[in-house]
Amino acid sequence: MNRHMTSHMPPHLAPHIPPSDASPEPPHAAPRAALGAAFAAVRAETERRAAPLSAEEQVIQSMPDASPVKWHRAHTTWFFEQFVLAEYAPGYVPFDPRFGFLFNSYYVAAGPRHERPKRGLITRPSVAEVGDYRAHVDAAMRRLIAEADAALFAALAPVVAIGLNHEQQHQELMLTDILHALAQNPLLPAYDPDWTMPGTRRASGMGEMRAMPEGLHRIGHAGAGFAYDNEGPAHRVLLPATRIAPALVTNADWMAFMEAGGYQDPLLWLSEGWAAVEAGGWEAPLYWRWQDGRGQDGRGQGGRGQDGGWHAFGLAGLKPVDPQAPVCHVSYYEADAFARFAGRALPTEQAFEVAAHQGLLDDAFGVVWQWTRSAYAAYPGYRAEPGALGEYNGKFMVNQMVLRGAALATPDGHARLTYRNFFHPHQRWQFTGLRLADETA
Amino acid sequence: MNRHMTSHMPPHLAPHIPPSDASPEPPHAAPRAALGAAFAAVRAETERRAAPLSAEEQVIQSMPDASPVKWHRAHTTWFFEQFVLAEYAPGYVPFDPRFGFLFNSYYVAAGPRHERPKRGLITRPSVAEVGDYRAHVDAAMRRLIAEADAALFAALAPVVAIGLNHEQQHQELMLTDILHALAQNPLLPAYDPDWTMPGTRRASGMGEMRAMPEGLHRIGHAGAGFAYDNEGPAHRVLLPATRIAPALVTNADWMAFMEAGGYQDPLLWLSEGWAAVEAGGWEAPLYWRWQDGRGQDGRGQGGRGQDGGWHAFGLAGLKPVDPQAPVCHVSYYEADAFARFAGRALPTEQAFEVAAHQGLLDDAFGVVWQWTRSAYAAYPGYRAEPGALGEYNGKFMVNQMVLRGAALATPDGHARLTYRNFFHPHQRWQFTGLRLADETA
Amino acid sequence: MNRHMTSHMPPHLAPHIPPSDASPEPPHAAPRAALGAAFAAVRAETERRAAPLSAEEQVIQSMPDASPVKWHRAHTTWFFEQFVLAEYAPGYVPFDPRFGFLFNSYYVAAGPRHERPKRGLITRPSVAEVGDYRAHVDAAMRRLIAEADAALFAALAPVVAIGLNHEQQHQELMLTDILHALAQNPLLPAYDPDWTMPGTRRASGMGEMRAMPEGLHRIGHAGAGFAYDNEGPAHRVLLPATRIAPALVTNADWMAFMEAGGYQDPLLWLSEGWAAVEAGGWEAPLYWRWQDGRGQDGRGQGGRGQDGGWHAFGLAGLKPVDPQAPVCHVSYYEADAFARFAGRALPTEQAFEVAAHQGLLDDAFGVVWQWTRSAYAAYPGYRAEPGALGEYNGKFMVNQMVLRGAALATPDGHARLTYRNFFHPHQRWQFTGLRLADETA
Amino acid sequence: MNRHMTSHMPPHLAPHIPPSDASPEPPHAAPRAALGAAFAAVRAETERRAAPLSAEEQVIQSMPDASPVKWHRAHTTWFFEQFVLAEYAPGYVPFDPRFGFLFNSYYVAAGPRHERPKRGLITRPSVAEVGDYRAHVDAAMRRLIAEADAALFAALAPVVAIGLNHEQQHQELMLTDILHALAQNPLLPAYDPDWTMPGTRRASGMGEMRAMPEGLHRIGHAGAGFAYDNEGPAHRVLLPATRIAPALVTNADWMAFMEAGGYQDPLLWLSEGWAAVEAGGWEAPLYWRWQDGRGQDGRGQGGRGQDGGWHAFGLAGLKPVDPQAPVCHVSYYEADAFARFAGRALPTEQAFEVAAHQGLLDDAFGVVWQWTRSAYAAYPGYRAEPGALGEYNGKFMVNQMVLRGAALATPDGHARLTYRNFFHPHQRWQFTGLRLADETA
Repeated sequence: MNRHMTSHMPPHLAPHIPPSDASPEPPHAAPRAALGAAFAAVRAETERRAAPLSAEEQVIQSMPDASPVKWHRAHTTWFFEQFVLAEYAPGYVPFDPRFGFLFNSYYVAAGPRHERPKRGLITRPSVAEVGDYRAHVDAAMRRLIAEADAALFAALAPVVAIGLNHEQQHQELMLTDILHALAQNPLLPAYDPDWTMPGTRRASGMGEMRAMPEGLHRIGHAGAGFAYDNEGPAHRVLLPATRIAPALVTNADWMAFMEAGGYQDPLLWLSEGWAAVEAGGWEAPLYWRWQDGRGQDGRGQGGRGQDGGWHAFGLAGLKPVDPQAPVCHVSYYEADAFARFAGRALPTEQAFEVAAHQGLLDDAFGVVWQWTRSAYAAYPGYRAEPGALGEYNGKFMVNQMVLRGAALATPDGHARLTYRNFFHPHQRWQFTGLRLADETA
Repeated sequence: MNRHMTSHMPPHLAPHIPPSDASPEPPHAAPRAALGAAFAAVRAETERRAAPLSAEEQVIQSMPDASPVKWHRAHTTWFFEQFVLAEYAPGYVPFDPRFGFLFNSYYVAAGPRHERPKRGLITRPSVAEVGDYRAHVDAAMRRLIAEADAALFAALAPVVAIGLNHEQQHQELMLTDILHALAQNPLLPAYDPDWTMPGTRRASGMGEMRAMPEGLHRIGHAGAGFAYDNEGPAHRVLLPATRIAPALVTNADWMAFMEAGGYQDPLLWLSEGWAAVEAGGWEAPLYWRWQDGRGQDGRGQGGRGQDGGWHAFGLAGLKPVDPQAPVCHVSYYEADAFARFAGRALPTEQAFEVAAHQGLLDDAFGVVWQWTRSAYAAYPGYRAEPGALGEYNGKFMVNQMVLRGAALATPDGHARLTYRNFFHPHQRWQFTGLRLADETA
Repeated sequence: MNRHMTSHMPPHLAPHIPPSDASPEPPHAAPRAALGAAFAAVRAETERRAAPLSAEEQVIQSMPDASPVKWHRAHTTWFFEQFVLAEYAPGYVPFDPRFGFLFNSYYVAAGPRHERPKRGLITRPSVAEVGDYRAHVDAAMRRLIAEADAALFAALAPVVAIGLNHEQQHQELMLTDILHALAQNPLLPAYDPDWTMPGTRRASGMGEMRAMPEGLHRIGHAGAGFAYDNEGPAHRVLLPATRIAPALVTNADWMAFMEAGGYQDPLLWLSEGWAAVEAGGWEAPLYWRWQDGRGQDGRGQGGRGQDGGWHAFGLAGLKPVDPQAPVCHVSYYEADAFARFAGRALPTEQAFEVAAHQGLLDDAFGVVWQWTRSAYAAYPGYRAEPGALGEYNGKFMVNQMVLRGAALATPDGHARLTYRNFFHPHQRWQFTGLRLADETA
Repeated sequence: MNRHMTSHMPPHLAPHIPPSDASPEPPHAAPRAALGAAFAAVRAETERRAAPLSAEEQVIQSMPDASPVKWHRAHTTWFFEQFVLAEYAPGYVPFDPRFGFLFNSYYVAAGPRHERPKRGLITRPSVAEVGDYRAHVDAAMRRLIAEADAALFAALAPVVAIGLNHEQQHQELMLTDILHALAQNPLLPAYDPDWTMPGTRRASGMGEMRAMPEGLHRIGHAGAGFAYDNEGPAHRVLLPATRIAPALVTNADWMAFMEAGGYQDPLLWLSEGWAAVEAGGWEAPLYWRWQDGRGQDGRGQGGRGQDGGWHAFGLAGLKPVDPQAPVCHVSYYEADAFARFAGRALPTEQAFEVAAHQGLLDDAFGVVWQWTRSAYAAYPGYRAEPGALGEYNGKFMVNQMVLRGAALATPDGHARLTYRNFFHPHQRWQFTGLRLADETA
C-alpha cells in the first residue's frame, strides 16, 4: 500500500466493519473485554517494534515514500484521538492541539505533498513526548472502552476496530521504513541482529505447477469479520484454466536469473521497467550487494572476484544471501521480467485467491507479499461510502499493482484471504516477492 | 497508444495476421489486386493528411510524446523498406542507407530516449526528400506486389498488411501531433478551417442507461481478418450486471461539471489525478480557453467577464465550444473524476465490447476514443511470439488504461470491435472522451 | 552574450550613442547617406547568412539558449518597427500587429521563460512571410532615413545605430545557433562546406609570454563612436604586473591537455566545473568526436583505435581537427582548467584591454572570443539610464564571465577594443577560446 | 562560505599559517600553553553551541546545503585525528576506523554529491558516541600539545591553528544549519529563547554616506597572524572615489522596500534574481512570515489584515520584526535589488576593506555579513599551493559573491579585516545583510 493510502486509512475501512452487537450488553461483557484486550495488544506491539530504536533512529526519514518511526507512533495515536476520543469521549482534552496538524495528513489541505517529505524534520515533539502522547491516549481509550454505556460502545467499537487495523498496517511500515533508513548508513547497523527471514518450504519456485480448471468462483470479502472496503463487494468471476506454483521464487532462482543476464536484457522487461533498471542502475534486488572475501563492496571495481558473494541487508544487518529463502525486495517490474524469463506469468489476484482458498499454495502468508499481474482496481459494484470516513475511497486505484498474501513483518491477525495490498510497479522497499503461474487457455 | 508502442508497432501485429492463401494463385488474382489497391489507398491517405502542412510545419515536434509529420511519413515508409523490400525484393537498393538510423527507433539500442525528443531537429532529409523517399519505396512496392510469384506473395502479404495497419495508426497520430504543435503557436493557425467535430446523437451523456444482465460472453478477436495480437486470445468472461449509457458525454455535460467546481474539488479525483490537476493547472479540457467578448484570453485576469465564453482549439482553429459535441481531449483522470461526479463509473473494456456488439451504444466508433476503467493488461493466455516481430509483445502492459471505440481521426477501415487502444492516464492530446456506466451487482 | 541580453539589447545601448549632429543639415547630407548605406549593408548581411538555410532549418530551435534563424530575422526587424518606425514615422502601419507578441521578448511580462523555449514551434508566419516582413520594414526605413527632416533625423539616427548593432549581434548568434541545431542531426549537414576556421599565427599558445609592468591605465569606452553602456564609464585601473601570451591556445595544445588526462583529473577543475564535466560527460570541446578509420564514431566502444582521430563539427561539417587552429567551443570551466594545467591563469579583462591596446597580442580579434577571468560586473560609476531603453541595464551582471576580442563570426565593424561579451561559465556553443596569462606580483 | 568549501577547509588555510617558532623552546613555553588554551576554548565552544539540542535535533539535515549538528561535531574532530594525530602522534589509534569515511568528505572520491544529502540519515554513531569521539580526540590532542618536543610542536602547531579556524567556521554553520532545520517544523521551536539579534547603531541604512576619494590602497592579508590563503597576496588597488554608508540597512528600511512593491517589480532585479523571486515565491527575507492578530499565518488567505504584522523566525523562535535591527537572511539578489531601489549600489569588497580600516563603518563586524558587489575571485598573483593541503585552492572561485565583515554568530576571534566570506547569490540561510555605497566617478 502506498504511503498516501496508509495515512488516509480510515475511509478505506468503513463499509465492512462488522456491526457490534447493539442489543443490551450481557453480563459477561465479552466483546468489551475482547476489544480492550485487542487494543492493548496492538498498541503494545507498536511499542515493541519501536523499542530497539534510538531517538535519532525514530526521527529520520530516508525518502518521501517512507515515514519516521516517531511519526508512525504519533499518527496512529492521533487516529484514536481524532476519530474516537473527540467523537465519543465527552470532555476529552487533546494532549496537544497542535498535534493534529503534525500527525494528520488528512485535513492538511494546504500542500500535503510539500509536507510529507518533511516528516523527518520534526524533532519536536521528541520521542519522549510522543511516548507521553501515546500513554495519554491509551489511558483515555482504556477508560472509554471500560466505561462507555452499551449504546456508546456499540457506536465506537467499529471505529476502534478500524483504528487497530490501521495501526497494524503502520506496524509493517515501521519496519520497512526503518530498514530503508538504516540501509543508507554506510555502517549498515542492524535493527535486530536476531531477526531472520524464514526459508521457504521448497528450494525453488520454478518446479511443480498445480492446475485449476476454468470455472466460476466467488471472490472478495463477505460476511462478518473485519475487512477493508476494497475487498468487496464479493462477486463471481470466471477464472480461466490456470496453473500456479505452490512455491515462492527463491533467492537461488533469482541468482540464476541474474547469472543468465536478466538485468541486462531489455527484451525481458516492460518498457517502463527497463527504464527503471537503467535509471536506478538495478542489477539485483534492493539491498543486495556483492561483497568480496575481505568484506569490501565489489561494485564498480572492474568485476567481481571469485571469492566473494551476494549479501543482503535486512533487519538483522548484512548477511550472505540464503539461496533457500524467498527472494524479497523486488519490484513488480522485476517480478514480471523474471516470469517472462521463466516462460511463465504472474498469477492474477483472482487466481491467487482461489488457489489459496483451495490450499494449493505453500507459504501464501507470512513470508513475503506476492506480486500479481492484476492492476489495483475497484471490484464490480464498488462504491465509495458517503461521509468523512468514506470520502477518499478508491483514491489510489490507478497505476498500482495488487499484491496478495502477507509478509513476515505483517502483524499477527492482519493477514486475510481477501486482503488486497497494492504498490507502484517500481517500488521495492516492502517485503515483496512472487510466485509463478500461467493460463492454459 | 503511446508513442513507444506506435514506433514499435511491427512486433505487436504478428500473431493474428490472417495467413494469405498459399495455394497456387488463381487466374483472377483478386488478393494481389486488393492488396495493391489497399497499399495505394493507405499510402495516399498519409499524403492527403500531410498536404495542408508547410515544410516548417512538418519538421516541428512540440513534446516528446509527439513526432513530426515528416518523421511519420518517413518512418512508415522505412517500415516497408526494412520489413518488406529488404526481405523480399531481391536486389532492392535502399533509398539512403542512413535513413534506417533516422527513422527506425527499433534498432537504436544506444539511447533511444535521448533521440526521440530530437526528432524535431532533423531538418535534413527535407520534406521534399522525404517525398522522394516515399515515391521510391512506393514504386518498388508496387512492382513487388505486382510481380512476386505466388510463394513470395504469400510470404510478404501479411507483412504488408501489418505495414498498412501500422501506417494507419500513424495517420491518426499525425493529426493529434500537429494539433498539439499548432496549439503552441500564439497565432493559433488552423490545420484545416473546414474540419468539424461531429455532434453527438444526443444532447447529454448523463441520461438513459441500458442494462446488461450478468452473463458469460466471449471477448477478443478470433477468426480471419486482421487484428493486433493484444486483441487475443479470444476468451470467455463473466460480465457482472451492468448499465451503460448509449450516449457520449458532451461538452454541455462537461461545462456543468466545471461550473459545479469539478476541477477544484479533490474529493472527486484519484490521488494522482489531483496531483496532475495541480501540476498542470488544469481547469478545462486540453485546448479549451476562455475568451471574452473582445477576443482576449481571460485567464489570470481576475475572473471571467459575463460576455465571454469557452472556446476550443481544434484542427479548424479556435472555435466556440459546441455544447452538443462530445467532450474531447480529456485524460483518464478527468474522465474518472467526471464519472464520480455523476455518481457513476466508466465501463470496463469488456462491458464496452459486449454492449457495442449488442448494439446498445450510439457513437461507439468514429467520434472519440472512450476511456474504460480497465488497465491495459494481457488477456488470459496471451504469450509473446518468438522472433523479431514478436519480441516486444506486451511491453506496454503497465500503467496505461484501455480506450475503446475509435475517433473521427481514425482512418476508414481501422476501427474494430475488439480494438484496444491505450494511453497513460494523464495524457490528453489524443481524441479522447468517455461514456458512463455502472455495475448493479 | 547570453540570449536574455541579446533579446533585450536596446536598453544596453543607450548611454553611449554618439549624438548625431543636431545642427541644420548641410547640403551634402553625408551622415544621412552613411546611415542609409549602413542600414542597407547590415540588413543584407543578415539575409546573406540566412540564405543557405531551408525553411525547415530556419524554424528549429535546438535548446532554450538558442533561437531559430527565422526568429532572429523577425526579431531584428521588429526592433526597427517598434523603436524607429512606430516612434518616428508618422502614419506607419505595422506589417502585422500580432508580430509584436511573437518577436518581442521585451514586453511579454507574462511568463517569458515559458515562451522562449517555444520559439522553435512558430511555424507561422512562415519563412516567406518573414521575408515579406523584412522587405516591408526595410522599405519604410529607407523612406524614413531619406525623407526625415533634420530634426527628426537627429532624433532617430542614434536609435537606428542601436538597431544596427543589435542586428549585428544577432548575426553572430544566427551562426552559433544553427551550428548547434545542425549538430543534433546524425547526418551532420554542413551550413556552408567552404567555411574555414583560420589557423592561428603561432603553433601553440603555451610559449612566449609578454610582460606588462604594474601601472595605471585607462579602461573602457569614451568619446565618439558607438559603444554599449556596459563599456563605460571609462575609468582608471591599477594593473598589476602581468605577463600575457601573444598567441591563442591551439587545438594541438588542447589535445596535449586531453592526453594528459585533463578531463579526468578533478584537481584541475573548479568545483562547479568538475560537476559540469561529470554531468555532461565532457571529454573534449563541444562538437569534437573521435572517428575511426572507417568513419565510425568510436565513443563508448571500449577504447579508441589507433587509426582514428579527433574530428570537429563546424559550419563546414565534420572535419579532422586542425592542430594549428585555435581551440574553439570550450567553456570557461574548461579554459580555467586548462590554465591551471598549464601553470598559468586567464587574463583579467583589464589586462586584455591594455595588452590589446599596446599591440602585445596576436589574433586578438576575428578568430575566437577569449575567456577572461573577470566576472561580468558594472564598471565603477555605471548607472542604468532612466526610460524604456535603459530600464534593464545591468540585468545580467551576475554569474557570467567576460570574454574579450571577437570571433570569426563577428560581423565586420562590430569588434571593438572595449567590447565586453559575456556568457555563463558552462556555455560552449559560442566561438569561444582562450589565451594564457599570469600576474607576477 | 558554501558547504563544499567548509568541508574542504584545510587546503585553503595553507599559505598564511604563521610559522611557529622553530627555535629551541624557551622555559616559559608560552606558545604551547597558548595553543593548548586555544584548543580547549574552541573545542568547548562547539559543545556549548550543541548543548541546547536533543539527539533528534543533532541528526537532522534540512537541505543539501546544510549539515547536521552531529556531523559538524564529528567532522571537526576527524580533522584533528586525520591531520594532526595521524601525522604527529606516534602510536595514535583512531577511535573508529570507519569514521573517516563518514566524516571526511575530502577523500570520498566516489560520488561525494550523492553522499552529502544523506548526512541526515547517519543515526549511528549516536550523539553520545560522537561525544565520546570528541573526548577521545581531545585527550590525545591535549597530551600531544603538552608533550611534543620542540621540533614536533613546531611542525604541528600550524596545523592545529588551521583546525581551530576550521572548527570556528563550523560553529557558525551549526547555528545557521539548525536554524534552517527548526524553521521546517510547524511548531517553530526555539534554539535558545534568550538569543537576541542586536539592534543597529542607527535607525536606517539609507541616510548618511561617507566619502573616500580616489586613491591607491593596499588590500589583503600580510604579515603574521592567521589568515586563509584567499586573503592574499596583499596587493595595491586603485579605489575609485566612493561613498559608503556607515549604517547597515535595517528591517525598517526593508519594510519600506516591500511596501513599495520591491518584490513585485522585475525592473529592480537582476534577471536571474527575478527568476529566483518567482521560483521561490519570495516576498520577504527568509524566515519572515505575516501573522495576524490571532497568531494565524496570513499567507494565501486573500490579503493581510490590518491587525497583523511581520514576524521573523530566529534562534529565539518567532518574534515580531524589530524595525531597528539589521535586515538579515537576504540573498545577494535581494541586496542588489534593494540597492537599485535605493538609487545606490553595494560596495566592492575593496571599498569595504578600506572603509573598515579607516573606521568609516558602524557595525562592520559582529552583526551580519554584508554582501559586496565583488564576485569571489583570486587576488592578483594568487596561486594554489602544492601538496595535499593546497590541492583544492581556488576551487570555489566562480559564481559566488564576496561577503565582508562578520555576524553575530561568528565566534569570537574569527573576524578579520581581510576576511572573505562567499556564498552563491541565491543563498539566504546565513546571517547575511547589507550596507549601501556608490561610486562617484
